[in-house]
Amino acid sequence: MALYVQKFGGTSVGSIERIEHVADKVKSFHQQGHQIVVAVSAMSGETNRLIGLANDISEHPTPREMDVLVSTGEQVTIALLSMALQKRGVNARSFTGWQAGIKTNSSYMKARIEDIDTSAMRAQLDAGGVVVVAGFQGLDGDNNITTLGRGGSDTTGVALAAALGADECQIYTDVDGVYTTDPRVVPAARRMEKVTFEEMLEMASLGSKVLQIRSVEFAGKYKVPLRVLSSFKDGNGTLITMEEDNSVENPVISGIAFNRDEAKVTIKGVPDIPGVASKILVPISDANIEVDMIIQNVSADGTTDFTFTVHRNDYQNALEILRSTANELDAREVTGTDDICKVSMVGVGMRSHAGVASKMFKTLADENINILAITTSEIKISVVIAEKYLELAVRALHSVFGLDAEEETA
Amino acid sequence: MALYVQKFGGTSVGSIERIEHVADKVKSFHQQGHQIVVAVSAMSGETNRLIGLANDISEHPTPREMDVLVSTGEQVTIALLSMALQKRGVNARSFTGWQAGIKTNSSYMKARIEDIDTSAMRAQLDAGGVVVVAGFQGLDGDNNITTLGRGGSDTTGVALAAALGADECQIYTDVDGVYTTDPRVVPAARRMEKVTFEEMLEMASLGSKVLQIRSVEFAGKYKVPLRVLSSFKDGNGTLITMEEDNSVENPVISGIAFNRDEAKVTIKGVPDIPGVASKILVPISDANIEVDMIIQNVSADGTTDFTFTVHRNDYQNALEILRSTANELDAREVTGTDDICKVSMVGVGMRSHAGVASKMFKTLADENINILAITTSEIKISVVIAEKYLELAVRALHSVFGLDAEEETA
Repeated sequence: MALYVQKFGGTSVGSIERIEHVADKVKSFHQQGHQIVVAVSAMSGETNRLIGLANDISEHPTPREMDVLVSTGEQVTIALLSMALQKRGVNARSFTGWQAGIKTNSSYMKARIEDIDTSAMRAQLDAGGVVVVAGFQGLDGDNNITTLGRGGSDTTGVALAAALGADECQIYTDVDGVYTTDPRVVPAARRMEKVTFEEMLEMASLGSKVLQIRSVEFAGKYKVPLRVLSSFKDGNGTLITMEEDNSVENPVISGIAFNRDEAKVTIKGVPDIPGVASKILVPISDANIEVDMIIQNVSADGTTDFTFTVHRNDYQNALEILRSTANELDAREVTGTDDICKVSMVGVGMRSHAGVASKMFKTLADENINILAITTSEIKISVVIAEKYLELAVRALHSVFGLDAEEETA
Repeated sequence: MALYVQKFGGTSVGSIERIEHVADKVKSFHQQGHQIVVAVSAMSGETNRLIGLANDISEHPTPREMDVLVSTGEQVTIALLSMALQKRGVNARSFTGWQAGIKTNSSYMKARIEDIDTSAMRAQLDAGGVVVVAGFQGLDGDNNITTLGRGGSDTTGVALAAALGADECQIYTDVDGVYTTDPRVVPAARRMEKVTFEEMLEMASLGSKVLQIRSVEFAGKYKVPLRVLSSFKDGNGTLITMEEDNSVENPVISGIAFNRDEAKVTIKGVPDIPGVASKILVPISDANIEVDMIIQNVSADGTTDFTFTVHRNDYQNALEILRSTANELDAREVTGTDDICKVSMVGVGMRSHAGVASKMFKTLADENINILAITTSEIKISVVIAEKYLELAVRALHSVFGLDAEEETA
C-alpha cells in the first residue's frame, strides 16, 4: 500500500466526461488499497473566462481580488470530482487550498508555499477516504486567498507529496511522458522510462514544456519522486528521480531540447578590460530583457567581441540598447540575427564521458551546419545554429547518440 | 454618518455593466461619509449553471460538495465588485463568508447563521474602506463551507446588519419598493413608504415575493430597519420598521395580498367530537402536504363540516387522503375545488378599527362575489373566493379602502 498524490491538469478535467474518467482512474488506484490525494486544476478555459471578466472591469485588477476570483476555478473542480467519486461509492472529500492547510506568503498571483498543515487531510486518509485538493491556491498569514501563479497546480501536487511523505507524485498530462526530443521534429523520439531531476530541469528550461520548472525544482529539493503520465492513455509515463542510473546501459545523452524563440546580438571591438561585460549587460537587464547564453572570446588586438542571446520578442529592443552602448564604449560594430535557434544535448552521463562535445560538433559539421555559439554546463551542451538547420541537426544528433527508438518488427 | 449594509441580488450584479452600476451606487454612498458593507449574490444564471454541472455528474450530489460548488458563484461577484470599486478609487476589500466570520450550523444547503465574528470587517471599516461580502454562505464549526439555501443573500445582509449594529439594511432588487398590491392586477397600486415587520410577514407569506420571509423574520427579531429599493431606479423604496405609525394619517389597511395557488377541500358530516380535527389533519401532514387556512363550524345535528386549503399541486393527493379518512370517520361527503384564490387585507391599523371585516364583506357582496371561507388574524383578514373574481375583488377593495394612488395632475 502506497500513498500517491495524483495531479490532474485543466485538460484532464476539462469536461464532465473527463472528470468522470479521472474519477474512474482514481477509484481504481484506491481500490488497489493505495491512499490517494488528488490535486486538480480548474476546468480548461475556466481560468481564462474568469480573467476575462476581471479585464472587462479593469485593466489593472488588484492581485488580491484576482486571486479571490480565479481560485474559484479549482474549487468548482474539487466539488465536481468529489461528487463523481462519491457516485462511484468512493468516500471522497474536497479541500480548498485553505481547508487543506496550505499556507503561503502574501505574494498574490505568484505566492510560494511556506507550510502545509496536513492534519485535516490525514484525518480523511486515516478514515480510508480520498482527499481532493484544489491546486494552485493557498492562504496567507492574514487569511487572504492566494494563488501560486498559472500552472501552479503542479507545485501544489509536489508540495502535498512532500508534506505527506508520499511515495510518488504523479502528474497527469496530455502527453504520456517525457521524450528524448520533440516527436513532431524527430518521429523516432522515444519516451524515457526515467530521467534525473537535473536533466529534467535542463530540458524544462529549454522548452520541453511538460512540467512547470518550479515544481521540478521543488520535487528535487524535497526528494519527491515525480512521475509524468497521460490522463488519457494507460502506461508508465516517465519517472523523474534523484537516482542516477549507474547501469552499463546508461546512455550518455538522455535527450535533446531545442528552442526557436532565440535571437543573437553581438557587439564587436569593445575594449577587453574589466567591467566591460557589466557595462554592456546592465542597460539590457534594466530594460527587463532576459539574457540566455553569454559568450565572450578574447581577441588579439586588445578588444573583444561580446555575444548574447535574448528572446526573439526582445531582439529589436536589445539591438537599440546595444547601439547606444556601442557609442559610449567606442565599440566597432553591433550585429545580430533572429534567424537562429538553440539545440541542447542533456544527460548526466555526460559528466564522465569526454568526447560528447567533439562528437556533437563533428555530427553538425558532417551535415554542413555552422555553429554560431556554444555554451556548456555539467550536463548540457548548447549550440546556436541557423534556424533552418534545426530539424536536420536534431535528427542527426538523435540518431548519432543512439536515442532513436528501435523500429518495431512486423 | 451612518453604517449601511447594502444587499444586491443576482439580477443587480448579473453582468459586468450592472456590477459597474452597483459600484457607482456604493461609491456615492461611501463618498457621503457613510460606512458601507455590501453583500452580494452570484451573477444571475451562475448558480443554475453550477447546479447544472453537478446534475450532469450525479442525480444526488452530496450537499457538502454542492455547497463547495455553488459558493464559488458569490466569490466571483465579490472579487469583481471589489475590482470595480478599486478602479473608482474606493478602498474596497472582498470577504468570502468565512473571511467575514460568518459561522453557521452544519445543515448544508440550508444552514442557519449562528454567529458572526465581525473583527475582520471592522478593521476594514475602521480603515475607511468598503467591505464586500459574499452572501448566502458561511462556515460550520468543522471548517466546512455551507450555504444558507437559495436566495439566502437577503439573510446574510440582515445578519451582517444585526451583528454590526447597522443603521439600515438596504435590500436592492428589481422592484422599487413594496406595493399596496400587485400593480399588474391593480394599476393604481401605490408604493408604501413604510410598512411594519408584522405586515410584511403577512404579505410575504401571502405571495408578495419581494423579500425572503426568513430575512424579514430575522430583521424583526434583531430590530434591524430594512429598506427595499430598486437597483436600477433612484428612489426611497419602502422602509420596513418595528415602529407603528401612530399619526392620524395612518391607514387602517396597508396592503392587499392574494394567492392563486390554493385549493379547498371539505369533509362534510363528521362527528363533532374532540379529536376529529387531528384525525383529519394527521394523514395530510404525514403526506407532507402543507395546510394553509382551516375552517370548522359547529353544526346542529351533532356533525360538523371541516374545510381547509392546500397548495394547488397537492389538491388531488389531499382529496384522496380525505376520502380514505371519510370512510374511517363515517363522514357524509368529501368535496373540493381548485378554482379558488385567497385575498388578504393586511394592516396593523386594523387592530384598533372595528368594522374592517364588515366593510370588506359588504364590498365583495356589492360586487356579487360569494365568500367561500374566511380566516382572520390580528392584522389580517383573508377570504377564499372563486378565482375568476380575483381581479374584481382586489381592485374594489383597493379602491374602497383608500389605497389607490392619486391621479397625477397634468
